[in-house]
Amino acid sequence: MPETIPAPDGETRVFLILGDPIAQVKAPRGISLAFAERGVNGVLLPAQVTAGALDTLVAGLRYLRNLDGLVVTVPHKFAMLRHCATLTERARLLGSVNLLRRNPDRGWHGDMSDGAGMLGAIEAAGGVVRGARALLVGAGGAGSAIGLALVDAGVAALAIHDEDASRRDRLVALLQGRGAEVAAGSADPTGCALVVNATPAGMRPGDPLPVDPALLEEGAFVADVITMPEVTPLLAAARARGCGTATGVGMFQAQQVVIADFLLGL
Amino acid sequence: MPETIPAPDGETRVFLILGDPIAQVKAPRGISLAFAERGVNGVLLPAQVTAGALDTLVAGLRYLRNLDGLVVTVPHKFAMLRHCATLTERARLLGSVNLLRRNPDRGWHGDMSDGAGMLGAIEAAGGVVRGARALLVGAGGAGSAIGLALVDAGVAALAIHDEDASRRDRLVALLQGRGAEVAAGSADPTGCALVVNATPAGMRPGDPLPVDPALLEEGAFVADVITMPEVTPLLAAARARGCGTATGVGMFQAQQVVIADFLLGL
Repeated sequence: MPETIPAPDGETRVFLILGDPIAQVKAPRGISLAFAERGVNGVLLPAQVTAGALDTLVAGLRYLRNLDGLVVTVPHKFAMLRHCATLTERARLLGSVNLLRRNPDRGWHGDMSDGAGMLGAIEAAGGVVRGARALLVGAGGAGSAIGLALVDAGVAALAIHDEDASRRDRLVALLQGRGAEVAAGSADPTGCALVVNATPAGMRPGDPLPVDPALLEEGAFVADVITMPEVTPLLAAARARGCGTATGVGMFQAQQVVIADFLLGL
Repeated sequence: MPETIPAPDGETRVFLILGDPIAQVKAPRGISLAFAERGVNGVLLPAQVTAGALDTLVAGLRYLRNLDGLVVTVPHKFAMLRHCATLTERARLLGSVNLLRRNPDRGWHGDMSDGAGMLGAIEAAGGVVRGARALLVGAGGAGSAIGLALVDAGVAALAIHDEDASRRDRLVALLQGRGAEVAAGSADPTGCALVVNATPAGMRPGDPLPVDPALLEEGAFVADVITMPEVTPLLAAARARGCGTATGVGMFQAQQVVIADFLLGL
């Protein structure tokens, strides 16, 4: 992948990622390079804005006529929902958005693609989702999006574990009736061919493992949302047992394609 | 000059050029390349906004925390004055701004550098401003900025011609008392060592010449604001008579340095 992009010009289409803090975001580089590779005259730049000023900025950005799309990260994924004129079903269900593009009347169309990135990473690494019995640990924002993506991609069963029982039960209720057998579960991966960690456990040395690797089924596939370290203790233990794995970095890479496609209306 | 810039990242500083239309502007390319050459992690992108929506956009952009500067072009140079908390003296005198950068309290500091670009182009092409008797044809926005720059750079005398006598007289009054002998003049360049065209005459085939080249003094220096064609009929005639010349493209190139310096607070 090249490290440079063509210099912008007067016809360049503008894309921004809204977040606070912003210095850590990878999308400006990844998406701008993806646009350059596709021959698209567009650049995605970081846009740091506090929660208190978000509405004023977004009200103004409505009138930036060559602004075609927004990526949204922490802490604005829920607040940006109210700026959307239309939503994908998954964004509506999850109550949050991470991607916005213009409708023909210039209002914003919102989507939540955090789950699609994990799905892409699992499939790119050889994991099988359709028909699998899966365990999801973590029912927060990322976990909810991943749970919905797994159910809609055809898992046979999804057990959901979260230390916050109300959060867990809310996600279970949200995902029931969509074709999979969804239930509150424990952190025990016994019987699961697919295990996904969507908690922060594994970011810091000494974190407890979100799942006991000794209980992993032979041939189970294990995925983790954490990007740093790329190979978490859970993934290292899973690999040592011969399991296939998908990393948070893989999820991020798969999501770059999803994001670029959405922003370009593909 | 390289044709590419480093891909942006989460720490990239944002700069925008506000205008309508916007596709024709050269600053995104010129300034983004200049930033890259200087090792500055910043990108300047086009921002198309109508006059009616300008205030709402700028009110929002105040809260884009990594937005460090704005370039302003037609039709917003006068309207953007009211968004500036502080102004350079030349911007205050001219009542318009083409450059804004943040003050420490994040309010905008405005400048008008259109005249400095022409000054830089004349000097780069070997023209002498200090002590010269000069003729300025055209007292509009660009002409006013150039007139002020010529007076403040030490011309001995400045004759100003404009078909609109009230516009001409307003500029004469503005520039008097700053050290040069400033007066309303005709289009006759007799006695002038420096002649500047700041009218659109010369953009279209068949335009009348703004100044009669047959009347140019031997050794006079002639400058033109027009960028297309780069060598206007006036400049071609002046060159045929052995005069030194500065083009609108040269003015634009000189201004790129002025703009980059200002936006970076240099």
